[in-house]
Amino acid sequence: MTTYFDIHQKQLLEELCTFLKFETISADPTKKQEMEACVCWLQNFLSEAGFEVSIWPTPSNPTVFATSKEPDPNKPTLLIYAHYDVQPVDPLDMWDSPPFEPTIREGNIYARGAMDDKGQCFFVLGALRAYYQKHQSYPINLKVLIEGDEETGSRGLQAVLEEKKEVLQADACAIADLGIGAIDRPSITLGVRGILTCDLTVMGPKGDLHSGTEGGVIQNPNQALVEILASFKDESGKVLIERFYDNVLPLANAELFDFTFDAKSHFDQHGVEPHGGETNFSPKERAWIRPTLEINGLTGGYAGVGFKTVIPAKACAKISCRLVPGQTPLEIEKLIQQHVEKVTPKGVTASLHFHEGAGEAARANPSSFIIEALKQAYESVFDLPCTFTLEGGSIPISVNLAKAANAELAFFGLGLPTDQIHAPNEHFGLDRLKMGFSLIEKLLEVMQGIKFDSSQ
Amino acid sequence: MTTYFDIHQKQLLEELCTFLKFETISADPTKKQEMEACVCWLQNFLSEAGFEVSIWPTPSNPTVFATSKEPDPNKPTLLIYAHYDVQPVDPLDMWDSPPFEPTIREGNIYARGAMDDKGQCFFVLGALRAYYQKHQSYPINLKVLIEGDEETGSRGLQAVLEEKKEVLQADACAIADLGIGAIDRPSITLGVRGILTCDLTVMGPKGDLHSGTEGGVIQNPNQALVEILASFKDESGKVLIERFYDNVLPLANAELFDFTFDAKSHFDQHGVEPHGGETNFSPKERAWIRPTLEINGLTGGYAGVGFKTVIPAKACAKISCRLVPGQTPLEIEKLIQQHVEKVTPKGVTASLHFHEGAGEAARANPSSFIIEALKQAYESVFDLPCTFTLEGGSIPISVNLAKAANAELAFFGLGLPTDQIHAPNEHFGLDRLKMGFSLIEKLLEVMQGIKFDSSQ
Repeated sequence: MTTYFDIHQKQLLEELCTFLKFETISADPTKKQEMEACVCWLQNFLSEAGFEVSIWPTPSNPTVFATSKEPDPNKPTLLIYAHYDVQPVDPLDMWDSPPFEPTIREGNIYARGAMDDKGQCFFVLGALRAYYQKHQSYPINLKVLIEGDEETGSRGLQAVLEEKKEVLQADACAIADLGIGAIDRPSITLGVRGILTCDLTVMGPKGDLHSGTEGGVIQNPNQALVEILASFKDESGKVLIERFYDNVLPLANAELFDFTFDAKSHFDQHGVEPHGGETNFSPKERAWIRPTLEINGLTGGYAGVGFKTVIPAKACAKISCRLVPGQTPLEIEKLIQQHVEKVTPKGVTASLHFHEGAGEAARANPSSFIIEALKQAYESVFDLPCTFTLEGGSIPISVNLAKAANAELAFFGLGLPTDQIHAPNEHFGLDRLKMGFSLIEKLLEVMQGIKFDSSQ
Repeated sequence: MTTYFDIHQKQLLEELCTFLKFETISADPTKKQEMEACVCWLQNFLSEAGFEVSIWPTPSNPTVFATSKEPDPNKPTLLIYAHYDVQPVDPLDMWDSPPFEPTIREGNIYARGAMDDKGQCFFVLGALRAYYQKHQSYPINLKVLIEGDEETGSRGLQAVLEEKKEVLQADACAIADLGIGAIDRPSITLGVRGILTCDLTVMGPKGDLHSGTEGGVIQNPNQALVEILASFKDESGKVLIERFYDNVLPLANAELFDFTFDAKSHFDQHGVEPHGGETNFSPKERAWIRPTLEINGLTGGYAGVGFKTVIPAKACAKISCRLVPGQTPLEIEKLIQQHVEKVTPKGVTASLHFHEGAGEAARANPSSFIIEALKQAYESVFDLPCTFTLEGGSIPISVNLAKAANAELAFFGLGLPTDQIHAPNEHFGLDRLKMGFSLIEKLLEVMQGIKFDSSQ
């Protein structure tokens, strides 16, 4: 069937390329102008889609907020969330085409943000505009929120959530930043893990020293860092921080989820066997329902070409924990702090800096009307049964946003595990872009039919 | 007493500054032209000092070699060694003045190489030139060798040693790259530790991955690296590599050395207590007569501003061992290799790359004529008794050079532990520069008086 996407593909891809070209790396403070230009572009796009748009200034990057006109209290209100910021691009030399010069190869569009989250944001906005231009109105009340700090912990949006509570009110809050199991396996994500990130800094001597003269005399911060980090886990991958697992809750609705792990496709994609994490849990359990502690960055001393026999003055690690229901960032922060104090060797000092943007794990209710509607939309577009899944990643703002909006939380999207998000050669399939347009159209249609009791 | 140095101080400091301005970082392959310019400057200087100079091309940077004219077979031949290459300069922002813009502050000259080894090389050359210009000849046969790869393992010189054996022949080989205990504590270094350096690289998945999706599933190369590195030592700082200590020889002439450790001055200098290395040895034992394993560099994943939730494709460490008499680099290399193979966790591969320039520990004979002569020279200049000491650092070429020259090995110099060598704000005292001129003058005088039997 020829769809709206097919007819307008050329124009739509040009528009998506424009969106992808903005270098909206929220971790990079030099990109403020790119952020503003992107916000302006989003504002225009949403206006064309019949929305009343406002730009919320925040302590970080602005949030774009849009509401459909003439809201009807007898219709459900759906708040859709996406983000326009992207991850940093390094290692740059591993990209086959520049990350901010979108390139189409073999049915995929390659760029930083192609999937996470500009590609997904784009099919939502594009489909809404198409619907509006056809009908000059929407069948339900719509609110769209697009923030600019998701990749750095939603600092900006988090700061204004409380004061914007009233305009945020909705019946459902759908986070457009997730994926499906496979191109022939539609699924809805019912939960994401929480996250807590920190920098661990080990300080030793006043300045860098010669490892001949002071080697064996002064405690080497690199050595101390390695000892502290190694103490976090035992040989079975179990986290040894005292009471780390104490509040982990058992999985609700366990019968809904399929923990089958496709070992072959995983190996083909990554080139290694899945030997990370706790050995007494299966790969999918480790990814979905077990908390983790990962070392995301290491730096200390001389790491360039050749060799420098230095004992550095300091060494640093970046650490993140993925959290599961029951665990709170504040509790885990305290436990890490206590552990580091306990294990830091003599002759150095260790300090922890916890970043903003931590958040608890989130779970959607599989019986809610929004999940029901999404399920119907997926099944219609794919012509296949839609299953439920969980996600190991985190969208820390999701719980807080749904809470502020008094809304049922839901996650959706058309990402695939092979999209290389956060990595070089991130991409998104044009086939899924087209499906995204149909998915949103179908969702509006299904929600229009829902007999909605606004007092429920 | 007004000395030659006092009279010519202005000109001499200008010349030293010129020498220090050459950016002769041997670890940096882009500095070839700086190397050549420096070699040319040395060639001119040595010619002015009455030497016949030749430049030896090598597979790396050229070696400058000079011999005094009209050698007399009835006089002893002294080969003096120094190097014109320097360490890299990072962290650049910790220098109070630019490393290649020599600056005099409070009686010290600050620059990369100010002590190691250009400052020391300069007083040797300057004093020789002064002697020659006064006497138009030398009282002994002199050979001067100045290489350009010491800081990266003497790769160039090592490669040509064998073919240059004949011209290198000498009675004594004195390495001008060492120091004294303190400004009021003249001492001669009787030994240096050996060295072995390597890169340890841990490879995991094909590319960088998202630590939400793959955290707890795939083995994180940062985690594996940390585990491997932590396995190298136990809590008492003892190296756990099997048979690492097996061939360590007891210290010869132990009665000659003073192992007293000045804890207060060490703390004042470095700001930390000496808690590195093996807890059941004293700080000086750990620095002088015990082998070490140090982590000189760590890198893996994202270490920039903010946070990136990445599982990196690889993580690396730079490791060095200081060796003591009895241990050979080849033997230790094999043991490290075996250890890493044994402890590498599943899901990653670890590889070791050993650098060129490894070398055994070196020991000078305290009863040799060259040590006797140096002792007299030191005692005359300082007007204090000269003691013996050891050094934790390494000069890998020293053993091989002395062997090629068939010469008694000796070390000398006027460095102080506070000179910040290999670190930001490296410096050398103008008082010691002056003493250096006197030391060389005195050494020539003493050696002239030695009844030397060339058949000994």
